[in-house]
Amino acid sequence: MAVRVGVLGATGAVGQRLIQLLDPHPEFEIAALTASASSAGKQYRQAAKWRVDSPIPEDVAEMTVTATDPDEVPDDVDLLFSSLPSSIGAEVEPAFCEAGYVMSSNSSNARMAEDVPLIIPEVNADHLELLEVQRDERGWDGAMVKNPNCSTITFVPTLAALEEFGLERVHVSTLQAVSGAGYDGVTSMEIIDNAIPYIGSEEEKLETESRKLLGEFDGAELSHDSVEVAASCNRISTLDGHLENVWVEAQEELTPEDAADAMEAYPSLDLRSSPDQLIHVFEEPDRPQPRLDRTLGGGMAISAGGFRESTFGLQYNCLAHNTMRGAAGASVLNGELLLENGYL
Amino acid sequence: MAVRVGVLGATGAVGQRLIQLLDPHPEFEIAALTASASSAGKQYRQAAKWRVDSPIPEDVAEMTVTATDPDEVPDDVDLLFSSLPSSIGAEVEPAFCEAGYVMSSNSSNARMAEDVPLIIPEVNADHLELLEVQRDERGWDGAMVKNPNCSTITFVPTLAALEEFGLERVHVSTLQAVSGAGYDGVTSMEIIDNAIPYIGSEEEKLETESRKLLGEFDGAELSHDSVEVAASCNRISTLDGHLENVWVEAQEELTPEDAADAMEAYPSLDLRSSPDQLIHVFEEPDRPQPRLDRTLGGGMAISAGGFRESTFGLQYNCLAHNTMRGAAGASVLNGELLLENGYL
Amino acid sequence: MAVRVGVLGATGAVGQRLIQLLDPHPEFEIAALTASASSAGKQYRQAAKWRVDSPIPEDVAEMTVTATDPDEVPDDVDLLFSSLPSSIGAEVEPAFCEAGYVMSSNSSNARMAEDVPLIIPEVNADHLELLEVQRDERGWDGAMVKNPNCSTITFVPTLAALEEFGLERVHVSTLQAVSGAGYDGVTSMEIIDNAIPYIGSEEEKLETESRKLLGEFDGAELSHDSVEVAASCNRISTLDGHLENVWVEAQEELTPEDAADAMEAYPSLDLRSSPDQLIHVFEEPDRPQPRLDRTLGGGMAISAGGFRESTFGLQYNCLAHNTMRGAAGASVLNGELLLENGYL
Amino acid sequence: MAVRVGVLGATGAVGQRLIQLLDPHPEFEIAALTASASSAGKQYRQAAKWRVDSPIPEDVAEMTVTATDPDEVPDDVDLLFSSLPSSIGAEVEPAFCEAGYVMSSNSSNARMAEDVPLIIPEVNADHLELLEVQRDERGWDGAMVKNPNCSTITFVPTLAALEEFGLERVHVSTLQAVSGAGYDGVTSMEIIDNAIPYIGSEEEKLETESRKLLGEFDGAELSHDSVEVAASCNRISTLDGHLENVWVEAQEELTPEDAADAMEAYPSLDLRSSPDQLIHVFEEPDRPQPRLDRTLGGGMAISAGGFRESTFGLQYNCLAHNTMRGAAGASVLNGELLLENGYL
Repeated sequence: MAVRVGVLGATGAVGQRLIQLLDPHPEFEIAALTASASSAGKQYRQAAKWRVDSPIPEDVAEMTVTATDPDEVPDDVDLLFSSLPSSIGAEVEPAFCEAGYVMSSNSSNARMAEDVPLIIPEVNADHLELLEVQRDERGWDGAMVKNPNCSTITFVPTLAALEEFGLERVHVSTLQAVSGAGYDGVTSMEIIDNAIPYIGSEEEKLETESRKLLGEFDGAELSHDSVEVAASCNRISTLDGHLENVWVEAQEELTPEDAADAMEAYPSLDLRSSPDQLIHVFEEPDRPQPRLDRTLGGGMAISAGGFRESTFGLQYNCLAHNTMRGAAGASVLNGELLLENGYL
Repeated sequence: MAVRVGVLGATGAVGQRLIQLLDPHPEFEIAALTASASSAGKQYRQAAKWRVDSPIPEDVAEMTVTATDPDEVPDDVDLLFSSLPSSIGAEVEPAFCEAGYVMSSNSSNARMAEDVPLIIPEVNADHLELLEVQRDERGWDGAMVKNPNCSTITFVPTLAALEEFGLERVHVSTLQAVSGAGYDGVTSMEIIDNAIPYIGSEEEKLETESRKLLGEFDGAELSHDSVEVAASCNRISTLDGHLENVWVEAQEELTPEDAADAMEAYPSLDLRSSPDQLIHVFEEPDRPQPRLDRTLGGGMAISAGGFRESTFGLQYNCLAHNTMRGAAGASVLNGELLLENGYL
Repeated sequence: MAVRVGVLGATGAVGQRLIQLLDPHPEFEIAALTASASSAGKQYRQAAKWRVDSPIPEDVAEMTVTATDPDEVPDDVDLLFSSLPSSIGAEVEPAFCEAGYVMSSNSSNARMAEDVPLIIPEVNADHLELLEVQRDERGWDGAMVKNPNCSTITFVPTLAALEEFGLERVHVSTLQAVSGAGYDGVTSMEIIDNAIPYIGSEEEKLETESRKLLGEFDGAELSHDSVEVAASCNRISTLDGHLENVWVEAQEELTPEDAADAMEAYPSLDLRSSPDQLIHVFEEPDRPQPRLDRTLGGGMAISAGGFRESTFGLQYNCLAHNTMRGAAGASVLNGELLLENGYL
Repeated sequence: MAVRVGVLGATGAVGQRLIQLLDPHPEFEIAALTASASSAGKQYRQAAKWRVDSPIPEDVAEMTVTATDPDEVPDDVDLLFSSLPSSIGAEVEPAFCEAGYVMSSNSSNARMAEDVPLIIPEVNADHLELLEVQRDERGWDGAMVKNPNCSTITFVPTLAALEEFGLERVHVSTLQAVSGAGYDGVTSMEIIDNAIPYIGSEEEKLETESRKLLGEFDGAELSHDSVEVAASCNRISTLDGHLENVWVEAQEELTPEDAADAMEAYPSLDLRSSPDQLIHVFEEPDRPQPRLDRTLGGGMAISAGGFRESTFGLQYNCLAHNTMRGAAGASVLNGELLLENGYL
């Protein structure tokens, strides 16, 4: 029997992607949609300007949107997916958890909070146990799990695959797709025949979220990993798919072959949205490329290539679909993890 | 009285840009155009598929193209600009120098040869004296000067401005325009909604040419600089303007303000094609951007911005117009330097 | 039992698409691949630079490519799909038909020949009987069927749906995707921030092929339709999907509602590659759009919208995926029609 | 001595272009800048988010912006350029004219009013006398002149050049640049790898404004021309430059050569912003193209090419820079015309 789920912030770009993924999902059943006060009471069809590349599901289209308020969401909803703007998320997400809801959230607020698990299931599923600490400390019946930022998700699995070599220093330069800024985030006049070497707060997210994801949870406390990360972020005129140039320096010797082998061998999980092969390794030096490789594994795989001995350590490139693996798909995957681990 | 000049490889993309710059140039007069055997004997108008964004100069259009052979170029030509494909340049450029011609070449062959000055006038004009060594060793009446690769020219002036801080390690990630690959180098299907994390041999050029440019010439030998450079190169869908993300680690303390001040203060030259301000420093965190900033200083300025304390040292972004500052304009500037220093 | 098929010109862009469609096709089995003499004898994997967005099928990758010569194709191959360049097609396609092969060809040669059926199955499947005339006149055991040009296929089904209103005059302006010119057909420097109001010979194809497709076959002769068509063709920077602005003037009154209803009601066929709904009609005035609507019906549907009473008659817009519905998919559909009608 | 001018709506995209053109203009001196109430009282530097590709003029940057209210504009300002949103223009422009200001407006409101001259100086400068009627009827000391929509300006001069052939029917299909929608008008996700076959109210503007521009003024009344125009409008991913496909049917015989000759011969004016050659005719069939030809004549020339005998009459393509010739430059040109004709 399917778990009844709700989507907070259901009319936005990630909210629409969430609906696209959840509607056909055999383990979940969409039972609640929330949005801003101005949309409350409307049919979803009227409230959302549907922009996803598949038609709006008929049953969802006819659901009534409510305000983003715990009192408005039915009690038999067991799991919430949140894609609220972070300022609103910071305000209302805790209220839902206090009211007993379990939540898988894509919003950036609280990602770095000590008692909030920041999860990429294939990388640090064991951090989920931090929820015990969270419930103890906050007195919640519910629970809050976050997925990282899209640009973080792209490179952290490749670092995880190399962890055994004793990673010390990482430089990462990103070429990010316009969809990462939301539907209206980048105007055409800004980006045609252009690139923008700046995305507000993005570099800090790669630098800090990565260390939390690779950290150790000892049952009581989460210690961040010691790897040091420096990030430089760029927006380019691709629609979907973040491409990243990575340099790593490690304690152990780390050859291009070692790295490719370790990534190829890095295990995926058995969750429904997990790709068969988590990291797809290319031998061709000019891959991965956003348009050609972003949909590997249904948009949930990472791809890597261009392994080369660098002046300092090793360099390679990696890629992931930013609105699938990096946002809506990441939240759904975390929902599946919560289900498998008995939190619902 | 204007110096009579010739263009080797006059029908190609950089050759056309050279003609566009040289035709109105008060110090130079175009007196010879060479191309492949199949074009020899034709009027330039017929031989070249003119693709530059200003009309073909009438007088040049009616000149007759000759084969790329020293015997075909008039003796009263004093200076040659070469934009030959590197494989052809490697073959025929020395023959011209042996025949007594002074040459400013954009071709990549011989850039790293010990006795060939690789010059960015504002950075290492003193390396020009290496020509004495060159003439001694090769027994040439002529001389050969090279300008570096377009992606190298973009970031080396910013490193030169920081040299006093004792640069040790540099990481650079490039977002390069399609024009850098020549008119037919990148197909539309490769680059629309896409980026390519690979440009053949490009990374090595940034890593080695930069050290030669920053090296010391002691009157007899040129020693390369000790700074270590790691590069990662990407092609994106901009028409002109290479954007680069740079991280530098130095012996001395180097703050974002220090770096911006040093670049702002870095002197330009009085050569005709030199920009008034060599490095244009932006305070706005999202600049420079290719489309907005590539034509600063008539396409001959470098721009820099996004200075930020990084996890390791300092990071910033820089930009230059790749076919102007990075290719044809670079060769013309070197020609002006040769003239000023009495080599013509 | 699957029909054994061959692909002539298998290494080109349309050839690769054909392989992508034919490999999983339950009615066809790829048994021969031909290409130019320089590829003959090589494994397909080596001969083709695979550029399609799904991996190269393993079994096809290991097949040996032969020259495009009837003697090199096994006799038990019953159907050939041809995507040869038209100059080569003009030369060798007849030899294959004379040797007994039945051929569904996408090449532009011979499309307008009096005894060659030019077919869009949903529009003029009855023209297939022209093959009797063809075989009589040419003495062939084989047969040759052509599909029209991609820009013709996009708008002719919409005209067919309106034929009952007595079409007299049609103006059509096209916005065509770069893939229509082949992988290397349009360079990035030609099309970024640009449009090209010219595609060689394209306008004539829309003007003449449309009249042949809408013509009547009386059992002996094919008379072209009397509708007059004027076309103006443009290349824009979309990857796939030709968009067309159409004006029609008819003898009968023809309102926007009439037109939309007639298109919506226009029947599809039961062939395996036929879409359920042939023409998808949009109410939104800004649809169809290439990126959003080109994959409708698996890339085999036409879409139409923007119906409006014009100063002269009626205007609307239509769209089709140019390499699917307009090329490889069109040939496969014609192959299915040949199979269903007993020609194999 | 320069005429003192003001810019209404000075912070918007066209307002910024107006300032870029007016600041160096020898006949005009910027003396007033107005914007919405929220900007009133601020320095222009603070009020405007400057996005034009040349630096903000220092003296303008320090001017204080006022509300868009006749009482706020100094009395010694003689000429106003208006780029107000049309809804606001409809409200406040008449108040300025009533208060005695002469105005050259780019806003779409009132363009079709019977007593408002809609002017392209090279086409219908004589319509300016309609201002006598306007002043009589409205009792204004001031006066209001409009320039047409950018897509109208692109093709009407080519029609004017052909008027002697007795134009009867015109079809025009447009490929319009994103800048025509304003800086934020088209998001990147809407237009990358896409085209939009709809621009609200645009088709009607081409169909009606063209007839007014080509009409006759008999000293008392303006009669619209009898030519019938049908338009279909598309947005594509070019930054600047509207490209248009045109078909014309005329009473007289009209060959491609006739048309090219008539356009080549069509006179420009002696106004300061007029290009030397108004219509630049290309022989190459693939020109004009937006990126290559939009800056001809300083962005104030029209270009035309692709002349071909069509199934119905004649077809050709034309192009103009939409924010220069089609908006800010058009208004400045009308200001120069008002000055030359003694209205200031």
